[in-house]
Amino acid sequence: MNYQQRIKGLQKKIRRKKIGSLLISKPENRRYLCGYQGGDHGINETSGLLLVPARGKVYLLTDFRFKLQAERQVPWAETIIYPKGALKLLGQLLPDLAITSLGFESDYTLHSFAKKMKETLSKKGIKSVATDGLVEKMREIKDEEEIDLIRSAVHLNEEVFAEIHTTLSGFSSEIDVALAIETTMRRKGAERPSFDTIVASGANGALPHAVPGNSPLAKGGSLTIDMGLILDGYCSDMTRNLVFGKASKRYKKLHRLVRRAQLAGAAVIRAGVRACDADKAARGIIADAGYGEYFGHSLGHGVGLAVHEEPRLSSRSNKKLKAGMIVTVEPGIYIPGWGGIRLENMYVVREDGCENLNRDITWLDI
Amino acid sequence: MNYQQRIKGLQKKIRRKKIGSLLISKPENRRYLCGYQGGDHGINETSGLLLVPARGKVYLLTDFRFKLQAERQVPWAETIIYPKGALKLLGQLLPDLAITSLGFESDYTLHSFAKKMKETLSKKGIKSVATDGLVEKMREIKDEEEIDLIRSAVHLNEEVFAEIHTTLSGFSSEIDVALAIETTMRRKGAERPSFDTIVASGANGALPHAVPGNSPLAKGGSLTIDMGLILDGYCSDMTRNLVFGKASKRYKKLHRLVRRAQLAGAAVIRAGVRACDADKAARGIIADAGYGEYFGHSLGHGVGLAVHEEPRLSSRSNKKLKAGMIVTVEPGIYIPGWGGIRLENMYVVREDGCENLNRDITWLDI
Repeated sequence: MNYQQRIKGLQKKIRRKKIGSLLISKPENRRYLCGYQGGDHGINETSGLLLVPARGKVYLLTDFRFKLQAERQVPWAETIIYPKGALKLLGQLLPDLAITSLGFESDYTLHSFAKKMKETLSKKGIKSVATDGLVEKMREIKDEEEIDLIRSAVHLNEEVFAEIHTTLSGFSSEIDVALAIETTMRRKGAERPSFDTIVASGANGALPHAVPGNSPLAKGGSLTIDMGLILDGYCSDMTRNLVFGKASKRYKKLHRLVRRAQLAGAAVIRAGVRACDADKAARGIIADAGYGEYFGHSLGHGVGLAVHEEPRLSSRSNKKLKAGMIVTVEPGIYIPGWGGIRLENMYVVREDGCENLNRDITWLDI
Repeated sequence: MNYQQRIKGLQKKIRRKKIGSLLISKPENRRYLCGYQGGDHGINETSGLLLVPARGKVYLLTDFRFKLQAERQVPWAETIIYPKGALKLLGQLLPDLAITSLGFESDYTLHSFAKKMKETLSKKGIKSVATDGLVEKMREIKDEEEIDLIRSAVHLNEEVFAEIHTTLSGFSSEIDVALAIETTMRRKGAERPSFDTIVASGANGALPHAVPGNSPLAKGGSLTIDMGLILDGYCSDMTRNLVFGKASKRYKKLHRLVRRAQLAGAAVIRAGVRACDADKAARGIIADAGYGEYFGHSLGHGVGLAVHEEPRLSSRSNKKLKAGMIVTVEPGIYIPGWGGIRLENMYVVREDGCENLNRDITWLDI
């Protein structure tokens, strides 16, 4: 990755905003800009902040525990340790660098931290300025190197699914299946699952975000599996449905309906189309068949260094799709007491259409 | 758990603060107050917010995907779905309930959300008020039911370690070991690891938060394993060190030193003692032996529904320990290029001393 080119691009934006520097706290933005892989333990325990001045070299601020990792992974930045917290360090460093304003990421900075930062910095005559989506905007469009990495993450995800699929009859519960999936992912080189694997059998399928439980997997019962992994920092996300034995007529009918909705959504996607138009196309198919009330979520979302990112394929989004965006298309039907079906693939937006990153083996066991 | 008693306790605090209601966004606080187990995907994607009015019943606000789970797990609260986001719902619900002020959790609310909330609510004449640590303060002191749950989490963690230990010679890399640990945890009933398992061999041991890699595990090499799991919502956290074959004289010497520091720290812990005094006692042992500069982090931290919570056993904390608090004691020595040793147990603070929740099999292979 050409991190230093990304930094230069961001520095241009920083100068255009007329701020002296920007503090990067969101882990995906940090990784995008410098490749640092330190793991945060939630928003309250960062493994490092990237300070990007409007010009010149950048600084990776971290604590004792991550010093060696930071220096190894980002040798071209200056790693500085904060023994007494990031704010104390910023209060010294910014005046030393003659920087008089600091932008921060408003949607990944806690209210309490922003308040303390303002107090600390204003004493030194430094202004803190809320910013929004500067790096996210850059991340929306993937270059071909990123698309290749995401393609690899998608293919590994499919490989894991295929391996689990051959042994599914031996599993006794949703938890068993989820555990096997996540173990196989990591054995095959994934950093981790990109989200908690969803394995929902029978009526549990009616919960789009079902938590795997100990329910036995019944003969003739269905299974919805929503799984994703992170490989070299990039995410995949895929949903498939299975039936142990023979699917009922109703199951087959609804599965076909969801698939038709997915194809209708994907058929609309190309550069220049509004996000809501893809949602509308897929939703229309389901609504026309009389199941509109059972499809309660948006059609899809962007995927990249984060598994959920811009653009959202939502009825409320007028955002225009651009070539190089990567989105999921995942319509679903959820019927309380009966179960649910969701199908999810990932697509690259191209000038003249879209490229399906998945191989369409969507019909397993049915 | 007596959730409704906890709610009543919190409502007293809310009335004392003279606010009309409190919005709970931190997942551990939400679980502590109502038992809801919905999984958040980071701070940007909550699985629900708990609205606690100063008096009367509470409301669990969530989206379509979590409706059934919320109703199942918290039948005594009123679950309300927000099809158009939490702020829109709050802007309708609070006036309906004649509530004119809303506290929010300042250290688990994003700057951007707090800003939008203030704008949305002020239009309805509702004041939003930053609060800090109201529920965390309640969570600091564990009752015996919680202590039993944490004891179970600690024992399961030890059981997993013991099982892995018997097969360690068969593993080929740090990643292998970490994966086996996390799989075994979940196979034995843990919800998940309480943090990313650290398996650091040889010189990697000098990184307190090492990320497991593919380095082969060498004969005669050392291994530091820091592992924890979540069982019934409660966390465990433990660090052990191993040597494949015969430990060097230096390794044995430093291991004994770290152990002496741990015992010295634990010996100080009882109700009424300041957190910094425990840190000082352990740090003194390591400093006196000439290794002070190689022990760069605090002595320990509280553990409960979160794996890192109050109280911190830090040189900067004058907080007095109280009976029912649970803390780790985890001194370490990290020598760049050579490796590291850390020992970590969990202790319950009692009136007259402390109770070690771990069984002290700290001398494995040495």
